[in-house]
Amino acid sequence: MDLGSELTMAIENRAFLQVCRGEKPERTPVWIMRQAGRYLPEYREVRKRVSFEQLCRTPELCAQVTVQPIDRLGVDAAILFSDILVVFDALGVDVRFEPGPQVEHPVRSHADVARLRDGDPDVELVYVMDAVRACKRALADRVPLIGFCGAPFTILSYLVEGGSSRDFEHTKRLMYAEPVLFGRLLERITELLCKYLAGQVRAGVDAVQIFDSWAGALSPFDYRMHVLPHVRRLVSHVRSFGVPVILFARGNASLLELVAGVGADVIGVDWSIELAHAIVSVGDDKIVQGNLDPAILLGPPELIETRARALVRAGKCARGHVFNLGHGILPATDPAHARHLVEVVHDEGTYERDR
Amino acid sequence: MDLGSELTMAIENRAFLQVCRGEKPERTPVWIMRQAGRYLPEYREVRKRVSFEQLCRTPELCAQVTVQPIDRLGVDAAILFSDILVVFDALGVDVRFEPGPQVEHPVRSHADVARLRDGDPDVELVYVMDAVRACKRALADRVPLIGFCGAPFTILSYLVEGGSSRDFEHTKRLMYAEPVLFGRLLERITELLCKYLAGQVRAGVDAVQIFDSWAGALSPFDYRMHVLPHVRRLVSHVRSFGVPVILFARGNASLLELVAGVGADVIGVDWSIELAHAIVSVGDDKIVQGNLDPAILLGPPELIETRARALVRAGKCARGHVFNLGHGILPATDPAHARHLVEVVHDEGTYERDR
Repeated sequence: MDLGSELTMAIENRAFLQVCRGEKPERTPVWIMRQAGRYLPEYREVRKRVSFEQLCRTPELCAQVTVQPIDRLGVDAAILFSDILVVFDALGVDVRFEPGPQVEHPVRSHADVARLRDGDPDVELVYVMDAVRACKRALADRVPLIGFCGAPFTILSYLVEGGSSRDFEHTKRLMYAEPVLFGRLLERITELLCKYLAGQVRAGVDAVQIFDSWAGALSPFDYRMHVLPHVRRLVSHVRSFGVPVILFARGNASLLELVAGVGADVIGVDWSIELAHAIVSVGDDKIVQGNLDPAILLGPPELIETRARALVRAGKCARGHVFNLGHGILPATDPAHARHLVEVVHDEGTYERDR
Repeated sequence: MDLGSELTMAIENRAFLQVCRGEKPERTPVWIMRQAGRYLPEYREVRKRVSFEQLCRTPELCAQVTVQPIDRLGVDAAILFSDILVVFDALGVDVRFEPGPQVEHPVRSHADVARLRDGDPDVELVYVMDAVRACKRALADRVPLIGFCGAPFTILSYLVEGGSSRDFEHTKRLMYAEPVLFGRLLERITELLCKYLAGQVRAGVDAVQIFDSWAGALSPFDYRMHVLPHVRRLVSHVRSFGVPVILFARGNASLLELVAGVGADVIGVDWSIELAHAIVSVGDDKIVQGNLDPAILLGPPELIETRARALVRAGKCARGHVFNLGHGILPATDPAHARHLVEVVHDEGTYERDR
């Protein structure tokens, strides 16, 4: 079933999808993690009227904020406005944002796992599917739409810790002391994420990014032993629908080689490693995405330009390069700096034949 | 001036210092980061009577808690009980622990930097020097004593952020937007740390560890450009006194090669990378320290044993290996598990000629 390629033929700006599929684009495509977010005054306007939770659950508003950075920055892809933790709705787990996520009853025992619901994401998360459809209408085929989810381990760590964590003590205790329960929980989450991303693809996303935001909590040994098989299953399930998959495991550059072996179309790279080294590490037959330190956008325009041009050139050593930050854009960023970045990338990233 | 080697001749358990100096010890030495700390009931007893700040400023109590893990665990080295932020006393900066450090007036402008005092650590931090002397008396030459400080960037980041941070936004803004001021501040901090560690050596420490706890906030490019020269200066200053220097830059395995080039005697390795890979990365002519994930001590004894034995064997591929955790021991750790770890390391790490 190759839903993806048929649905995306009509899209005007195809640079992002071309790179994802291993084709040479006219120019290096660029999008920015958290490009729909607090650094944009038009986003903050919307947030004056609704909470973060309400926004995630209101498809027309999701579409509105998803499109904002397309107009403002000129990026080559949109990413659905949502949150990785909305899947808790299908598990029957309450989470509040204060502003960091807080889970009322963390999941740490056999009984806790047994209590999780097996909700159907097409029903429980229909507001996400509606948001995808609303985004596609609002984008009107100008740029592709990226759907997303959290990776199994990242979702598990929020369930088990009950919020953000520094040492992931509860998660690791479960992994080391109760590896079977840990594996069973990861399996249930993976099952849900497979259905959830299938739903997003049916609703119309053109590509998918899997955020393993807390992968860096694990050593390569533990990531390979406890986590990787589940990621591999999720990636191959989504790829079977014909849409490209970006896998972004953040926080530990020593995981890159493992991540590159999972079979995702694009390997996300965080800012902690030089892109040239990352390309050597994953192999120059791979397609990479990244990896400017978001804090560079807090610096002067000349610095942004120098660093961005160097990064575009480094990316040309890979089979393909989607330019992005190496982590989400910081709320304190001047939107003019973000726009400047996009312009510089497009200028430096135009391939020779077009000059 | 080689104070170190003369002063340490009398020490009974020389395995740690032998490895630091590139000699073959009878067995792999082991100590544990934060081995004097909250996981020990005898430490919590002391803390019932005094605050963390008071404890750091009471030499006899510092000595008492410094020695506690030597008796309890059988580790091969003691590390001075103190905090990297006590140096703020010499800069005239107020910091409270609630329990994370909070700086009243973060240092972010030229005026802020100009206001910093140039205190003499032998005067302003005489309580640390007294604590070193008290520790040496209390240890009675059973094991060597490790002194320590925070690395220049880590100290700077606390000054600039005013506490712990996730994105190091203020620090990076300063580095990118005001690189000259950033460099000047790092220089002043480095100057202070040179004097501070010289004082610790004169007071009697047998080795020194420099904790670059937040090095992982930086990409290799920025670490090399903005931070490394200051670390190099500090390391070579302390080495000129004849005591071994351990440099532990935490949080980004891609910095290891850079860190290894600074000239420290021992390269600390955090848990985020396989030790075997770290040894390849820094070169097998180097001496390494690390790197068991502290969370493994939350698991069952059999897991601790398996992982520890594998790590001792991996460490034998380096020129020398000081066994340690790859980050501080977690407060929830059972002290019996820590003792078990030490015993397993000593058992596996005994060199063949002695069997």
